[in-house]
Amino acid sequence: MTFPVVGMVGGGQLARMTHEAGIPLGIRFKLLSDTPQDSAAQVVNDVVVGDYRDLDTLREFARGCDVITFDHEHVPTEHLRALEADGIPVRPGPDALVHAQDKGVMRAKLDAIGIPCPRHRIVTDPRDVAAFAREGLADGEQGDGFPVVLKTVRGGYDGKGVWVVDSVEEAEEPFKAGVPVLAEEKVDYVRELAANVVRSPHGQAVAYPVVESQQVNGVCDTVIAPAPGLDEELALQAEKMALTIAKELGVVGHLAVELFQTRDGRILVNELAMRPHNSGHWTQDGAITSQFANHVRAVLDLPLGDPRPRAEWTVMVNVLGGDYPDMYSAYLHCMARDPQLKIHMYGKDVKPGRKVGHVNTYGDDLDDVLERARHAAGYLRGTITE
Amino acid sequence: MTFPVVGMVGGGQLARMTHEAGIPLGIRFKLLSDTPQDSAAQVVNDVVVGDYRDLDTLREFARGCDVITFDHEHVPTEHLRALEADGIPVRPGPDALVHAQDKGVMRAKLDAIGIPCPRHRIVTDPRDVAAFAREGLADGEQGDGFPVVLKTVRGGYDGKGVWVVDSVEEAEEPFKAGVPVLAEEKVDYVRELAANVVRSPHGQAVAYPVVESQQVNGVCDTVIAPAPGLDEELALQAEKMALTIAKELGVVGHLAVELFQTRDGRILVNELAMRPHNSGHWTQDGAITSQFANHVRAVLDLPLGDPRPRAEWTVMVNVLGGDYPDMYSAYLHCMARDPQLKIHMYGKDVKPGRKVGHVNTYGDDLDDVLERARHAAGYLRGTITE
Repeated sequence: MTFPVVGMVGGGQLARMTHEAGIPLGIRFKLLSDTPQDSAAQVVNDVVVGDYRDLDTLREFARGCDVITFDHEHVPTEHLRALEADGIPVRPGPDALVHAQDKGVMRAKLDAIGIPCPRHRIVTDPRDVAAFAREGLADGEQGDGFPVVLKTVRGGYDGKGVWVVDSVEEAEEPFKAGVPVLAEEKVDYVRELAANVVRSPHGQAVAYPVVESQQVNGVCDTVIAPAPGLDEELALQAEKMALTIAKELGVVGHLAVELFQTRDGRILVNELAMRPHNSGHWTQDGAITSQFANHVRAVLDLPLGDPRPRAEWTVMVNVLGGDYPDMYSAYLHCMARDPQLKIHMYGKDVKPGRKVGHVNTYGDDLDDVLERARHAAGYLRGTITE
Repeated sequence: MTFPVVGMVGGGQLARMTHEAGIPLGIRFKLLSDTPQDSAAQVVNDVVVGDYRDLDTLREFARGCDVITFDHEHVPTEHLRALEADGIPVRPGPDALVHAQDKGVMRAKLDAIGIPCPRHRIVTDPRDVAAFAREGLADGEQGDGFPVVLKTVRGGYDGKGVWVVDSVEEAEEPFKAGVPVLAEEKVDYVRELAANVVRSPHGQAVAYPVVESQQVNGVCDTVIAPAPGLDEELALQAEKMALTIAKELGVVGHLAVELFQTRDGRILVNELAMRPHNSGHWTQDGAITSQFANHVRAVLDLPLGDPRPRAEWTVMVNVLGGDYPDMYSAYLHCMARDPQLKIHMYGKDVKPGRKVGHVNTYGDDLDDVLERARHAAGYLRGTITE
């Protein structure tokens, strides 16, 4: 057997769904998981339980893997370099991944390659934040320039590590962690978009249709593919931007580029993620090749699959934990109501607000597709009871 | 967590693909496998290695399972009854499954419920076979009535346990195993069809479009969904027949009804299989809900998913083992040539003639869809090299 072994670091739902997508390819999948109960650890045969922050654990895990890839961006960059020095292909590699790990490095690189971003700079203390705010005032404009967005350059996700501050006093909190802080203008956007691309080591790349991503309390709630009413020119610009970033940063695998569509018709990069991403979950049921299947193909340097949609509209809605720990009994209602519904649950314990699954729906009528997905997600969560 | 545990007996590719389809439902999957290397055992977390013919092994395995289902029909009927007596739901149950295990029981039942079958009866020795052959002669027709099809009532699959005999001398072989032998007329058919349905314990049932199934040397080679040019009336008749069989035999889960379409425009039942079936593999990429997903939903008594096709034409071609043990390197050519190709490999060692995977293609143009699937399967096997 010459079929390769893909080593996946991290046992979350992205690893779970990547394994699911890898099964048809006949490849072997090896998982490094924090616990035996992690989402992916429940469904993978070859599970190593260990701490990805420990280099010896990583090295031991990597033995017998043909390539290493990730469920998250938290593996220390220096550990990735050590694995590469051991001769293990790491995809995406540390030189690319650092841009998803450190928002300061990311902004500097995007500036250097001419990708439009919100106005930003690293700030040193609350007084510096106030100065950054004032720098945003137009000539002759009154006021203090607040609000400003502050982000720790490392460690944030799903709204954690991000503050929107209205005054110099409020700007004190982000500095308490002792991590460099990035200040950004609060962009006047009409909506958030995501441009998802996949790139392979030999440079082939594919772009998924640009989607609209709706956030609730800083957490992705709904994704609509393709983004409704998006100007073709702007969509093409967003796709090109994502392809350029993937190439210039040397990304291998799936790259999600989260974007702001501004009121004045521009597109600005918000965040990058170098792994399968929540904004690409719709592809499981809505695209010819899913983001997970293409991520596996990319890290193995196989030719990429067709990213085009299979339906006019596909909608993904996240299922967050609610007050009811039992979501399984809700299947009866949801499946009977909508025989076309696609449920994707992660095997995670229900905690209020935690992402425990998502649903996909597709069809020709966007209103109908949206209603079906929202109803199912709400019913599973327990916020809709009829 | 109230999510159920599905116990799957048998570690073949059907179990592997059922697990794949079960992952999104968040259910737990427990596997009883002959070896740790079996196709499904490679990709399932909770694997028990043991012999399904041993009742104690089965009982130990069934502990902690909410339902038991199967990758094959070989578990002794009396063991299934013992599990049921222990209070474990067995789906399909022994009273249904016996019809897929014993061709004599199957024919008797289909006769009793008025389902058209080839002329048949249990024969006792070669002379009885000759008598059976003569019984098929029309009034005044000359000859000995051969050829006749002989089948051992238990243990055959993929052409094994089946003989087409031209004389009383040739009819000796099938009796050597000491198993009852069923004689059947050699049907003058224009093609083989399959009607696949799924039924749940509370009686809900769905029917997939009737497909054409092309065999090579007694092994399924190509499946075209839906069966090209099939008269609507005949298609409906075949679907109704399968639904009737599922109901009357008390089938739970996926039922494949293999059919002969005769030269004179009738449909006769050839074989039954009570599990996901090769003739339903196209549903993975070609139907809204795959046979595997619906089998899982049925054995859990969940509402069934929509069985309708997503594309005008879907074609499945089996990948058989050829002379080259390495199929992975063929991925480069196949994936680059056809970015829409769907490969499903089973993780099995390549042996000449062994089913080691299949490919699915879909689209609007049947000739194109067929060509793509045949090229890919041939290239993977090594019979096409350009």
